Amino acid sequence: MKIVALAGGVGGAKFVDGLSRVIPSEDLTIIVNTGDDFNLFGLRICPDLDTVCYTLAGLANPETGWGRENETWSALETAASLGGPNWFHIGDRDLGLHLERTRRIALGQSLSEIVSDFCTTWKIAPTVLPMTDGIVPTLVETKDYGILGFQDYFVRLRCAPVVTGFKFQNIEYCTPALGVLSALQSADVVIFAPSNPWVSIGPILAVPGISEVLRSKTVVAISPIINGKTVRGPAAKMYAELGITPSALAVAEHYREFLSGFVLDRLDSEDAKIIARWGIIVLETDSIMSNVADRQRLAREVTVLCRKIIGGSLPA
Amino acid sequence: MKIVALAGGVGGAKFVDGLSRVIPSEDLTIIVNTGDDFNLFGLRICPDLDTVCYTLAGLANPETGWGRENETWSALETAASLGGPNWFHIGDRDLGLHLERTRRIALGQSLSEIVSDFCTTWKIAPTVLPMTDGIVPTLVETKDYGILGFQDYFVRLRCAPVVTGFKFQNIEYCTPALGVLSALQSADVVIFAPSNPWVSIGPILAVPGISEVLRSKTVVAISPIINGKTVRGPAAKMYAELGITPSALAVAEHYREFLSGFVLDRLDSEDAKIIARWGIIVLETDSIMSNVADRQRLAREVTVLCRKIIGGSLPA
Repeated sequence: MKIVALAGGVGGAKFVDGLSRVIPSEDLTIIVNTGDDFNLFGLRICPDLDTVCYTLAGLANPETGWGRENETWSALETAASLGGPNWFHIGDRDLGLHLERTRRIALGQSLSEIVSDFCTTWKIAPTVLPMTDGIVPTLVETKDYGILGFQDYFVRLRCAPVVTGFKFQNIEYCTPALGVLSALQSADVVIFAPSNPWVSIGPILAVPGISEVLRSKTVVAISPIINGKTVRGPAAKMYAELGITPSALAVAEHYREFLSGFVLDRLDSEDAKIIARWGIIVLETDSIMSNVADRQRLAREVTVLCRKIIGGSLPA
Repeated sequence: MKIVALAGGVGGAKFVDGLSRVIPSEDLTIIVNTGDDFNLFGLRICPDLDTVCYTLAGLANPETGWGRENETWSALETAASLGGPNWFHIGDRDLGLHLERTRRIALGQSLSEIVSDFCTTWKIAPTVLPMTDGIVPTLVETKDYGILGFQDYFVRLRCAPVVTGFKFQNIEYCTPALGVLSALQSADVVIFAPSNPWVSIGPILAVPGISEVLRSKTVVAISPIINGKTVRGPAAKMYAELGITPSALAVAEHYREFLSGFVLDRLDSEDAKIIARWGIIVLETDSIMSNVADRQRLAREVTVLCRKIIGGSLPA
């Protein structure tokens, strides 16, 4: 069973790490959001890609979910002492990655080639692809702060501004990274990781060509919202600010046109009933991933669901 | 007595640190070579400026003369592990400076404004000016390696290639940084620090307008060559490769059109006699700077010489 997972953010990274532990690497491709990429100090920074790669490589900081374990902060502290911004926390090891990525981009390498090389170095076995090699910054439209760059909203302002909408700048002109469409076309199932539907999965779906392929595919999504809340991140807050009650149901509604299956927490069994009535196969389970065993268990359950759906052997 | 010192490299940095300890800060302006500036990882790196500033700020690594004390190397090690170059040794703290400088340049600040701000942060009292805010890379023409960027020659290839000449790219189109010409015009004495005449002082003299002002000024130079050798760096090797016997005499010859005074080591008293015959006031002293006391003593002796020259009270 060939699986393509769409992912972004810490929850997405944890889930695809689980997947990488339960299915053969050659059967797994991970397409990562790059809408939250940005430039700081002249360096190209790709937070979602790096979180996914650090997690898969076993290098991630288990406390924060982002950045690297055993990190030091000398460079950023020095820059800050000279008047530089320090709201985006870049550790020294993390910085080394940004330096080398930036150097290679200046030499003309594509982001996807670079990610591929880094994955080889880090012995990451599944295929990890950025959604595009283009520059498609996610902009957050807010009530009181105007239009913000994503990291400005997400990290500097800690998601405090009230959101009124999103724009994926230039996304209509970008193309999927090499390998993205072919991986999707040959996938048996596409899984939307428990990532933010607005700003992690949303940008991937907005890359020209991706949604078109997905409409002919078996898609299973995992709700990042549990009992109206998120484990981390602003997805629930965004739904509320956009006038939608945050819930697993809202997530299923969000993705409805694509879905064959949907995974939500046991706490959301009322939502499960409604979604099932739409003809979507629903799995209720424990969806919080507190440790590696949780990631692995959730991933295994999701793959079992996927097999049932594509095998036509549906749960009762 | 208003002094302007031209400097580049570790020897130059040590000497101007000595000067800063023996004359009032408001009377000292240091003009630093920027011909060895380059880009790595997309960052603007200014080795001579940084060596001068780190030395004046008391942040320099006393072992190496360049870079910072108590440095860590996480970022460069990570970049290298991903295939990046690590021949130019950038520590994490040093990197923080490059990050912030690069960020400010992208915002439109001039290098001289940035240096001024950093000097304020570091409580560096003398005025430190880059020779120009322009980009004027020193190229090293070599017998067997073609034309090399300066750091490529100096650091990566450890000065091994045989030099056939130098080119200061675009220097004819650059202008001195704001404050450079006015500092030179109001100087009582201009001192050429014991820096490499070819690639540290040479680029400064090649900035349009600087040599013209210097011809009407009292100039005192300190030989970086002692008994045919340099304490560090390739100045002596360069003279030899260009067909000139490396010596204090060769340095005096190099600068002859500008010189009122010349400082050399006691080991070079034969050279001293010849230079004195040209009508240049010569000071023989111990010119190796092994510690801060040496820097201070040498600087004091040089300032005494300067005073004698401009006061007309010449040594016998």
